[in-house]
Amino acid sequence: MIMDMRTPRANSDTRPYYVATGDEEKIFKAAFRQGLSILLKGPTGCGKTRFVEAMAHDLGRPLITVSCHDDLTTADLVGRYLLNGNQTQWVDGPLTRAVREGAICYLDEIVEARQDTTVVLHPLADHRRQLPLERLGVTLEAAPGFCLVVSYNPGYQSVLKDLKDSTRQRMVALEFGFPSPQVEEGIVATEAGIAPAQAEKLVRLGQAIRRLENGGLREVASTRVLIAAGRLVAEGLTLTQAARAAVAGPLSDDARVSDGLNKMIDVYLGG
Amino acid sequence: MIMDMRTPRANSDTRPYYVATGDEEKIFKAAFRQGLSILLKGPTGCGKTRFVEAMAHDLGRPLITVSCHDDLTTADLVGRYLLNGNQTQWVDGPLTRAVREGAICYLDEIVEARQDTTVVLHPLADHRRQLPLERLGVTLEAAPGFCLVVSYNPGYQSVLKDLKDSTRQRMVALEFGFPSPQVEEGIVATEAGIAPAQAEKLVRLGQAIRRLENGGLREVASTRVLIAAGRLVAEGLTLTQAARAAVAGPLSDDARVSDGLNKMIDVYLGG
Amino acid sequence: MIMDMRTPRANSDTRPYYVATGDEEKIFKAAFRQGLSILLKGPTGCGKTRFVEAMAHDLGRPLITVSCHDDLTTADLVGRYLLNGNQTQWVDGPLTRAVREGAICYLDEIVEARQDTTVVLHPLADHRRQLPLERLGVTLEAAPGFCLVVSYNPGYQSVLKDLKDSTRQRMVALEFGFPSPQVEEGIVATEAGIAPAQAEKLVRLGQAIRRLENGGLREVASTRVLIAAGRLVAEGLTLTQAARAAVAGPLSDDARVSDGLNKMIDVYLGG
Amino acid sequence: MIMDMRTPRANSDTRPYYVATGDEEKIFKAAFRQGLSILLKGPTGCGKTRFVEAMAHDLGRPLITVSCHDDLTTADLVGRYLLNGNQTQWVDGPLTRAVREGAICYLDEIVEARQDTTVVLHPLADHRRQLPLERLGVTLEAAPGFCLVVSYNPGYQSVLKDLKDSTRQRMVALEFGFPSPQVEEGIVATEAGIAPAQAEKLVRLGQAIRRLENGGLREVASTRVLIAAGRLVAEGLTLTQAARAAVAGPLSDDARVSDGLNKMIDVYLGG
Amino acid sequence: MIMDMRTPRANSDTRPYYVATGDEEKIFKAAFRQGLSILLKGPTGCGKTRFVEAMAHDLGRPLITVSCHDDLTTADLVGRYLLNGNQTQWVDGPLTRAVREGAICYLDEIVEARQDTTVVLHPLADHRRQLPLERLGVTLEAAPGFCLVVSYNPGYQSVLKDLKDSTRQRMVALEFGFPSPQVEEGIVATEAGIAPAQAEKLVRLGQAIRRLENGGLREVASTRVLIAAGRLVAEGLTLTQAARAAVAGPLSDDARVSDGLNKMIDVYLGG
Amino acid sequence: MIMDMRTPRANSDTRPYYVATGDEEKIFKAAFRQGLSILLKGPTGCGKTRFVEAMAHDLGRPLITVSCHDDLTTADLVGRYLLNGNQTQWVDGPLTRAVREGAICYLDEIVEARQDTTVVLHPLADHRRQLPLERLGVTLEAAPGFCLVVSYNPGYQSVLKDLKDSTRQRMVALEFGFPSPQVEEGIVATEAGIAPAQAEKLVRLGQAIRRLENGGLREVASTRVLIAAGRLVAEGLTLTQAARAAVAGPLSDDARVSDGLNKMIDVYLGG
Repeated sequence: MIMDMRTPRANSDTRPYYVATGDEEKIFKAAFRQGLSILLKGPTGCGKTRFVEAMAHDLGRPLITVSCHDDLTTADLVGRYLLNGNQTQWVDGPLTRAVREGAICYLDEIVEARQDTTVVLHPLADHRRQLPLERLGVTLEAAPGFCLVVSYNPGYQSVLKDLKDSTRQRMVALEFGFPSPQVEEGIVATEAGIAPAQAEKLVRLGQAIRRLENGGLREVASTRVLIAAGRLVAEGLTLTQAARAAVAGPLSDDARVSDGLNKMIDVYLGG
Repeated sequence: MIMDMRTPRANSDTRPYYVATGDEEKIFKAAFRQGLSILLKGPTGCGKTRFVEAMAHDLGRPLITVSCHDDLTTADLVGRYLLNGNQTQWVDGPLTRAVREGAICYLDEIVEARQDTTVVLHPLADHRRQLPLERLGVTLEAAPGFCLVVSYNPGYQSVLKDLKDSTRQRMVALEFGFPSPQVEEGIVATEAGIAPAQAEKLVRLGQAIRRLENGGLREVASTRVLIAAGRLVAEGLTLTQAARAAVAGPLSDDARVSDGLNKMIDVYLGG
Repeated sequence: MIMDMRTPRANSDTRPYYVATGDEEKIFKAAFRQGLSILLKGPTGCGKTRFVEAMAHDLGRPLITVSCHDDLTTADLVGRYLLNGNQTQWVDGPLTRAVREGAICYLDEIVEARQDTTVVLHPLADHRRQLPLERLGVTLEAAPGFCLVVSYNPGYQSVLKDLKDSTRQRMVALEFGFPSPQVEEGIVATEAGIAPAQAEKLVRLGQAIRRLENGGLREVASTRVLIAAGRLVAEGLTLTQAARAAVAGPLSDDARVSDGLNKMIDVYLGG
Repeated sequence: MIMDMRTPRANSDTRPYYVATGDEEKIFKAAFRQGLSILLKGPTGCGKTRFVEAMAHDLGRPLITVSCHDDLTTADLVGRYLLNGNQTQWVDGPLTRAVREGAICYLDEIVEARQDTTVVLHPLADHRRQLPLERLGVTLEAAPGFCLVVSYNPGYQSVLKDLKDSTRQRMVALEFGFPSPQVEEGIVATEAGIAPAQAEKLVRLGQAIRRLENGGLREVASTRVLIAAGRLVAEGLTLTQAARAAVAGPLSDDARVSDGLNKMIDVYLGG
Repeated sequence: MIMDMRTPRANSDTRPYYVATGDEEKIFKAAFRQGLSILLKGPTGCGKTRFVEAMAHDLGRPLITVSCHDDLTTADLVGRYLLNGNQTQWVDGPLTRAVREGAICYLDEIVEARQDTTVVLHPLADHRRQLPLERLGVTLEAAPGFCLVVSYNPGYQSVLKDLKDSTRQRMVALEFGFPSPQVEEGIVATEAGIAPAQAEKLVRLGQAIRRLENGGLREVASTRVLIAAGRLVAEGLTLTQAARAAVAGPLSDDARVSDGLNKMIDVYLGG
Repeated sequence: MIMDMRTPRANSDTRPYYVATGDEEKIFKAAFRQGLSILLKGPTGCGKTRFVEAMAHDLGRPLITVSCHDDLTTADLVGRYLLNGNQTQWVDGPLTRAVREGAICYLDEIVEARQDTTVVLHPLADHRRQLPLERLGVTLEAAPGFCLVVSYNPGYQSVLKDLKDSTRQRMVALEFGFPSPQVEEGIVATEAGIAPAQAEKLVRLGQAIRRLENGGLREVASTRVLIAAGRLVAEGLTLTQAARAAVAGPLSDDARVSDGLNKMIDVYLGG
C-alpha cells in the first residue's frame, strides 16, 4: 500500500528520518537517563514530532502521543470508570499506560490543555515520579524508562495560555528552529520523492518567506508545507501550482498578503 | 417523486453538476493520491459542497459530511460509548467511520467547531495519518482512500474563530469564488429548470449585487439564492416576486438596504 | 367548553382565521412545492404563527412547532437515547419526526437558539434535504411534504444573536407587518367577540401607539394585545380598564412612558 | 401548633387576608375567565403572593407556586425522566401538573429565570394554551381553569434581566404598590397580633422611609418588614429594638445609611 | 484525647463558650419563637458560629450547618435522587432534614452561594414556612422549632455577590463586631489555655491592628487568630514567634505590610 | 533500579533530605500538636514539598498529597458515589481518607482550586475539626493526628485567584525562601550526585539570576532547576550545556532575556 511507505512510524524497525542540528539528541538522552522531564519549544512543522519518534526509536521505548486541546480533561489523560456489564471498570488513560509500561509520553501542544492537565503532571515531573490516581485511591510509581515530553510553540503563547513557572521549572528545555537549507533540501527531496533541484527551489522560496517576518504572516512557511508542495509536484503539478496550493494558501487569507506570496512564488519558481 | 429529481446525491450514479473554474479538480486529485488533507476556502453558496460531491464521485469514494458547530465535540466526530442491554458499547463517529472505510470526510465550516475538534485532526492530517481513539486505547491507521477535507469562509473569520496555523499548515488549500456569468447561467437554468433568458436576467442581478461590496451587505448574493429565485419562477411567480423573496429578503433586514435591493430588482428584472 | 371555541388549532377541520395582506400565501406555497425552506420576519404578535397554521391547513400537512430558546440543544430537535428497561432506546425529536412524516416544522424565534441548532439545519435547508443523525450513524432523506419554516423578529437582532448568512441564504424570506386598520378591526372583533365599534376604537388606539416609534417603547402594540383588551371588554370591563391592563401594562414599566400611554387611552377610549 | 395559626395557606377554608386597593381583583377574574395570562408587577413584600393566594381561594382553583432563579431549567418546570426500578419514568414538573389539573401556576420573580423558561411559556400564554412536552413527543391542551400568573419587580430589571416583549405581550398586567396607611395598619396589627397603636407607629416609620427614595436604599421598607417588627414586639421586645432588627438591619449594610435609619427609628418609635 | 477537650460542640451537654455583647440573644430567641428567619452580619472570626452553637444549645434544638460556596447547588441543600440497588432513592439534603426535624439550619457565608440557593429559601423564610421539593412533587411544612439562620460578611459584598432585597426583607438582622478587650481576653485565655497576662498582650496587639483600617489589610486580626497565637504559646513558642505565624502571616502577603505588622508585634509583644 | 535511589519518599524509613533555615520545624510541630491548620507560602521549587515530607516522617504520620487545579471539585477531595455491581458505593476522596486515618493532608497550590474546595475546609480548619459529608448525611470528626497543610505561591496571586480571609485566618502561616548558598550547594551536590565545586558554580549562577529581579523573569532560578542542571552534568554534559537546557530554557521564551541568561551562563560556568 503506497501510503504506508510514506509514513514511517515509531516502534517500527526503521529509524524515522531525523537529522540533528545541535546537541539536542545528547541532552534528550541525558535527561531521559536521569528521569527528568523534557520541554520542546519551537514553531509548527519544524520537526518536533519526528525528533521524539527518532528518540523513542534510539532508546527502544514505546511512544504514546497525545495532541492536547482545550477540552482535554485530566480523566482523558489518566483514565476513567466505564460501565461494563453491570460493573464499573477502570480504563487507563494514555498517561497512566505510559507510567505503567515505562513508555515515552509525548504531550503535543501542552499549552492548549487546561491547567488541571498540567498540574496533574507535577508529581510525575519532579523527583517523586508519581502519578496519584485519586479516583482509584492509589499512587503509581513511574516504571523505569517512563519519560514525560511536552511541546509547545512560544509564538502562540498569550497571557491566558502559558505554561506556569512551577511546571516549566520541573523540565529541561530544548529549543527547535528550522533546519539549515542543505539539511532541509535533503528532507524535502526524501520525504516528497522529488529531484534535489526541485527541492532546492522550494527551500529557497521557504527561506525567502521566513525572512519576511513582518509581512502580515502569523507563522512562516514550515518544512512541512514545503514537503506538501513537493508531494504535489511528484504527482505532476508544476512547482508554481504546487506552491500556491500548499504554501501560499495555508499561510494567509488576506488578499494583499496572498498577492505578495504569489509574486514571490512566480519569482522563485516560475519559468 | 419530483423532489428526488432535483437533489443529486454523492454515491449515486450521476455525477453531481459541477463545472470546474480552474485547476481545482487537478489539485484535489493530486492531494488525494498523496494522502494530503485539503482546505476549501470560499463564500457561502459558491459550490464547495457540490465540488466535494463531484470529486467523491470521480474518485469512487464514499462521502461522509459533517456540518460543524460550536457544540460539536470530539466525541461527536470520533465516537462514544452507549449503553446497550447491560453493557456499554462503542459506536463509531463519522470521522472514525471514514478512517476505517477509506471515505472522504468533509467537515463543513470547520472554524465553527471548538479547537479540540481541529486538534484531534492533527495526527490524521499530517504524515502519520493516524486517529488515536483514547477512550478505546487504540490508534487507527487511516485506510487507503481516506481523505480529510475541510471548508471555511474567510469572510467569517474573527480573532476568536480562526484556524490555527498548526492546522492550516497540515493542509493543501483551494480557493473558491463565484463562477463566471456564463457558467452561472448554466447552473441556474439547469438547477431551477427555467429558460436560459430568465437565468441570464437573474445572474445579471447577482453580478450587480456582488459589485456593491460596501452597500451594507455582509455577504453578497450567492449562486444558491439565484437558483432559489429561479425555482420560484418555475412555480409561476414573476421574476420580481421571486427575487424579492429569495434574493433581497435573505440578504438584509435593514430597511434602507432592502429598498436599494428592491430598486435593483425592478431595474434588472422589472417590466 | 368555552375555551376550545376560542382556540382554533392546526390539523383541525376549520381553517385558522388568517387574512392575507399580500402575495405571502402564493410565495409560501410555491416554496413549499419546490422543497425550499422559508424564513418569516416580523414583529411579535403580528400573526406569523397564525399564518403558518393556515398554510399547514391549506396544504394538508401536519404542523410541528418548536419555540426556540438559549438552551435548546440539537438533541432536543433531533432526538436522543433514553434508558428504557435495560436498553437505551432512541427517541425522535420534533425535527426528526417532521422529516420522517413529511410535516411542516416551524421553529419559532430561531435566533434565540444556539448556533448548533441552526447549523444542523443546513443539509436539510439546501438541495440535499437530508438530516444526518450522527448518533444513529444514519442520514435521513426528508419525506415529500416536509418543509422547514423559521421565524424571527429583526427588531431583536443584535451582533451576538443573528442568523448566519450561510443559514439565511438557504431560505426564501417573507416579511410581515401589522394588518391594515380594516383587517385588524375584523380580527379583533372576531377573536375577542366584541362589537365592531369597540374593536374600531381599540385599533385606532393601536395605530396611534405604532406611530410613536421613538416614545420609549421597544415594541409597539401588537394585534395580540388589542385582542386581549377586547377579551377583557367582553368580560364586562370598560375599554379604559381593559386597555390599561392589556395594552399599557405590557408595553412599559417606565412611569413617564406609562403616563403617556394612559393619557392616550383616555383620549382614544375615554368617555 | 401556634405557627399554623399565623400561616394561612391557599387551598384552606379561610380566605387569606388580602384587602383590594383598586380593580385588581376584577381584572384578575376577567382575565382568568378568558384564559389570559397575568403579569403582576411590584416591589418586594407588597403582597403579590397574598393576592394570588386570595384569588386562588375565590376562584376555587389549586395554587402551584414556583420561585424562579438563575438555575431553574425548563425541565424543572415541565418534568423529566427519572430512573425507577430498571425503567426510566416521566415525572411531571409543577407547570405540567398545573396544566393537567387546571390549577393556577404562579411563577414568582420570573425575570430571575433563564430565557428558556419564559419561552416555553409562549404557546401556553397565547391563544394556543398548549404545553409541548418535547421529550414525551406530545402536546398538552391546558385543562379549563388553568391560569398562568407571573410576577416581577420592575425595580430589579436590568438590560441583562428583562422580560422579552414577545412574552410581555402575551399577558395582561397588574401593577402593585404598598397599601394606604390605614389598610397597612390593619394588616400589621392582624398579622403580628399587636395593638393598633403600635401598628400605627410602625406604619408611620415605614411611610417615612418610603419618602426617602434617594437615601442610599435600593428598596424601601416593605409591609413584610413592618409585620416582622410587629412580631418581635409581640414577643416582648421594645418597638425600637424590634425596628432596628427587623427594619434597619435588612435594609442596609452601609454604616452612614444605618445611622440615619436608626435615628428615624428613635424619632418615630423612641420614648 | 486532648483535641476533644478543645472543641466544644453543639448538641453536647456543655454550653459553647459565648459571652453576649448586647441584646443579640434576646432578639434571636424572640425571632425563633415567631418562626422568623435570622441574618447574622459581621467580619470573619468574630464568633458568629459560636453564637449559633450557643443558641441551639439554649433552645434545645439540633444544629445543622452548611458552609456555602460558589458551587453549592439547590440539590446540595434540598436533596437528590441516588441510585440504590436498581432503584433511584431520594436522599434528603441538610436543609430538608432541618425542615423535617425542626432543627436550626445555619447557612454560613450565604452570599457565596448561587442565587438559586437563596431563592429556594424564600417560601421557607416568609409566612409560608414551606419547602417545595419540586423533584418529589411535594411541599413540606417546616416542623415547629425549625429556624433558618444565615450569615454573611458585609465587608466581602460586591455588586456581583450581594443578598437580594427580597431575601433580606424576609429576615431579622443581627450585627456582630469584635468583643470588648476584657471579654476578648477571657475568650483567648480560656480557648488557648494560657495565662491572662499573655492573653492581654495578644488582645492589645489585636486592638492595635484593628485601628489601622487603611494599612493595606483587607480584614483585621480576628479573635480567631489571637486564639491561634495563644495556642502556639501554650506549646512553648514565644509570643513573638506565635504572633508572626498566627497573626501577621495570615493577614498579608505584601512585604511592606508584613514588615509593619512584625514591627507592631515587636513593640507589643517583644522583650 | 537507579531511579529509586534518587527519589526519597515520605512514609519510607529514611528521612527526606531537608535542612531547616529557621524555626519552621518548631512552629509546624506546635501547630500540629494543637490541631491547627498550616499555610506554607513560598516560590516554586524552594522545598515546600520536601519540608512536608520531612515533617510527616518526624511526626510518624502518613502523608496524602493533592495537587490542586482549576477543575478540582469538592467531590474529588471528599469522595463520590460510584456504580459497583448494581449498587452505588461511596468511595472516599483523599481528604476524607486523611480525616479518618489521622494523616497529614497536603493541598499543594491551593489557590488554583475553586472556592468550593477551600470553603469545604472551613469546619475542618477551625475549632470544629469536622468534615461534613453532605451526600452521606454524616459529619466526620477528624481523627487525632489529622493535620491540614496547604501551600501557595504569593507571587502568583491575582485579584481573581486569592485565598479568602476567612480561609487564611483559620491557619498558621510559614514563609519559605531559597536556602543560603552553603545549604543550597549541599542540596545540589547531594541530590545531583556531582562534585561540590560543580555545585558551587551552579549555585553562584542561581544567586546571580535571583539578584536580577526585574530582568524580565516572572520567577527566578529555583533550587529545583539547579539540581536538574547538576543531574545533566552527572550524565557527562558540560556545565554550560546543562545550564542552558535546565536553567535558561525553562526560565524564559523571550529572545532578549534568553540571550542575557546565556551570557551569564558563559560568565559563571564557561571556561
